[in-house]
Amino acid sequence: MLAVRWYGRRDIRLEEIEEPAVKPGFIKIKVKACGICGTDLNEYLHGPLFIPTEEPHPLTGKTAPVTIGHEFAGEVVEVGEGVRDFEIGDRVAVFPVIHCGECYFCRRGMENLCVNFGVTGLSEDGGFAEYALVRPYQAYRIPEGVSFEEAALVEPLSVGVRAVKKAGMMPGDSVVIIGAGPIGLCVLLVAKASGAGKIIVVEPLEARRKKALELGADVTIDPSGRNTEEVVEEIVSETELGADVSFECVGLNETFKTAVESIRKGGRAVVLGVFKCITSFNAKGLVVGEKSMIGSVSHSADDFCRGISLIDSGRVDVRPMITSKVKLKDIIERGFEELVENRDRHVKILAIER
Amino acid sequence: MLAVRWYGRRDIRLEEIEEPAVKPGFIKIKVKACGICGTDLNEYLHGPLFIPTEEPHPLTGKTAPVTIGHEFAGEVVEVGEGVRDFEIGDRVAVFPVIHCGECYFCRRGMENLCVNFGVTGLSEDGGFAEYALVRPYQAYRIPEGVSFEEAALVEPLSVGVRAVKKAGMMPGDSVVIIGAGPIGLCVLLVAKASGAGKIIVVEPLEARRKKALELGADVTIDPSGRNTEEVVEEIVSETELGADVSFECVGLNETFKTAVESIRKGGRAVVLGVFKCITSFNAKGLVVGEKSMIGSVSHSADDFCRGISLIDSGRVDVRPMITSKVKLKDIIERGFEELVENRDRHVKILAIER
Repeated sequence: MLAVRWYGRRDIRLEEIEEPAVKPGFIKIKVKACGICGTDLNEYLHGPLFIPTEEPHPLTGKTAPVTIGHEFAGEVVEVGEGVRDFEIGDRVAVFPVIHCGECYFCRRGMENLCVNFGVTGLSEDGGFAEYALVRPYQAYRIPEGVSFEEAALVEPLSVGVRAVKKAGMMPGDSVVIIGAGPIGLCVLLVAKASGAGKIIVVEPLEARRKKALELGADVTIDPSGRNTEEVVEEIVSETELGADVSFECVGLNETFKTAVESIRKGGRAVVLGVFKCITSFNAKGLVVGEKSMIGSVSHSADDFCRGISLIDSGRVDVRPMITSKVKLKDIIERGFEELVENRDRHVKILAIER
Repeated sequence: MLAVRWYGRRDIRLEEIEEPAVKPGFIKIKVKACGICGTDLNEYLHGPLFIPTEEPHPLTGKTAPVTIGHEFAGEVVEVGEGVRDFEIGDRVAVFPVIHCGECYFCRRGMENLCVNFGVTGLSEDGGFAEYALVRPYQAYRIPEGVSFEEAALVEPLSVGVRAVKKAGMMPGDSVVIIGAGPIGLCVLLVAKASGAGKIIVVEPLEARRKKALELGADVTIDPSGRNTEEVVEEIVSETELGADVSFECVGLNETFKTAVESIRKGGRAVVLGVFKCITSFNAKGLVVGEKSMIGSVSHSADDFCRGISLIDSGRVDVRPMITSKVKLKDIIERGFEELVENRDRHVKILAIER
């Protein structure tokens, strides 16, 4: 079968490999749609980050090369021994988290913090292929009305679900979203569906600001060439005292400060960005403003199910997030390379069929 | 009457001033006990910090000199016009917060974040005097079994109540308290009363570590001459994966880092310290560890009532916090100066009677 294999930084290859045989305790899926995540692009440009190259992953035993892709959906074509709850023909979205079930965190339902945390499509072969094997706990049947393409977006959407849950967001809360990449936009969709009041999006790329408005933002702010104080001042003037909730979806020192300083006293800043630097900020403002800064990472099974439900109920329409659909055989050139060259033009690129 | 008046930095004076006449909407209290707060000492050594010196306080109209002291209790001796709920002879603890009742925060029950926030004993005359005037909403009747001296400690205790509430602490949570000054010890008392599991206290002064053990800490750590990494490592080894909750009660860059790094993934760090510096930390750890950093400041009426209830029910014994009782006329020399010279020997010094 055709598969996109990660060998190293700037080295992903389209290869014909052997179709995987179903194993006991697994189900085999014919992949119908698979999206490129920012993490995939990071692995391509700057990896290895999560992909195991020297030590095999503790749960999968795999090292590179691996078939990448962890935002995918498809149809069950084979069911391994011992699998009770799936049948051939089931349409499923894949929850790509692999967890040990035994550690402190897994035992308490915090599988996203599992000490042996892994991801199908990074820690083992994933969705940029014609077929993939997944564990039953990773497969969620999707309702009739949800397409495979929409189902491929449940994964990033559920990152937004988690962030909104962690924020303890209430209907009517004013919201600032810093960064309108795919994750920022997913936060926007879920915040909107959860009854957010005014939604302000801070994003330097014009195309993404336009997309944010299309998806329901009320105000967008271009931070280009302006310092944190000016951006914060504009947010505060839009919300009277500062926003109730902010979402940091970038991972820079300046955006971190904006997230904390643009919320009102008693407000909550949820931090999702991928940080590579030490961050400096004014802790006095945190204390005397009685603010909360809340980390949010990945998603849980609960978040994933809510993602499906939001799409199925029509509360969230993820389709405008899909800016391009290409065939699997073209995904390196017209997906990965396209994102490197024309990031501004895209939110989500999907590979569909062979 | 005798009163301790703040005139400026290093300038507080014991003076005979006119006894205040009760005003409509106020009650007059004969002060029975008043404690020195770290804030009082800061105003003495480094003020003015909260005390208004140029602009009159928006709610009280006062500027310095003011009678200091905001941790106090006493007996109602006169009731102003329009006061319904108090009678002469009522024994009360004073909730020293003054709030406007009109701002965004007051209207939502967040009086500790009032934009016109003031404190009796800083923003107007307070408890280091024979008599004080307070508003009915500031007076809470204390049960028979609670002494005036214990009642004077309700104020700092309720700062601990708020911090524990903000932590969302659950029975069995392992707890790290960084800094065992009066506030750190109040957090310790409330955490213990709330069913904390192992309690670890980080404090450089030996006498305070001993006091922490006396008040219920399980383990104390002396951070002197050790770096953050070593302190964090010791906490983690005491708690397997890191503590469930930490309380930062100091306000330094190092203690902030310790608070964030010594909690387990998914843990909560409540930050109460008085910060004078910009703080640097690793935001990546916040995100991938899905930690929360939660500011906590002052206390609310609800916190204050819980403080009274904790003492009345015997769940908290604040008496070991009182390390010295002196007469009001001696409080500058044997209270303020004593704390400057022998901070290590004391937790709480009370002024009692004339």
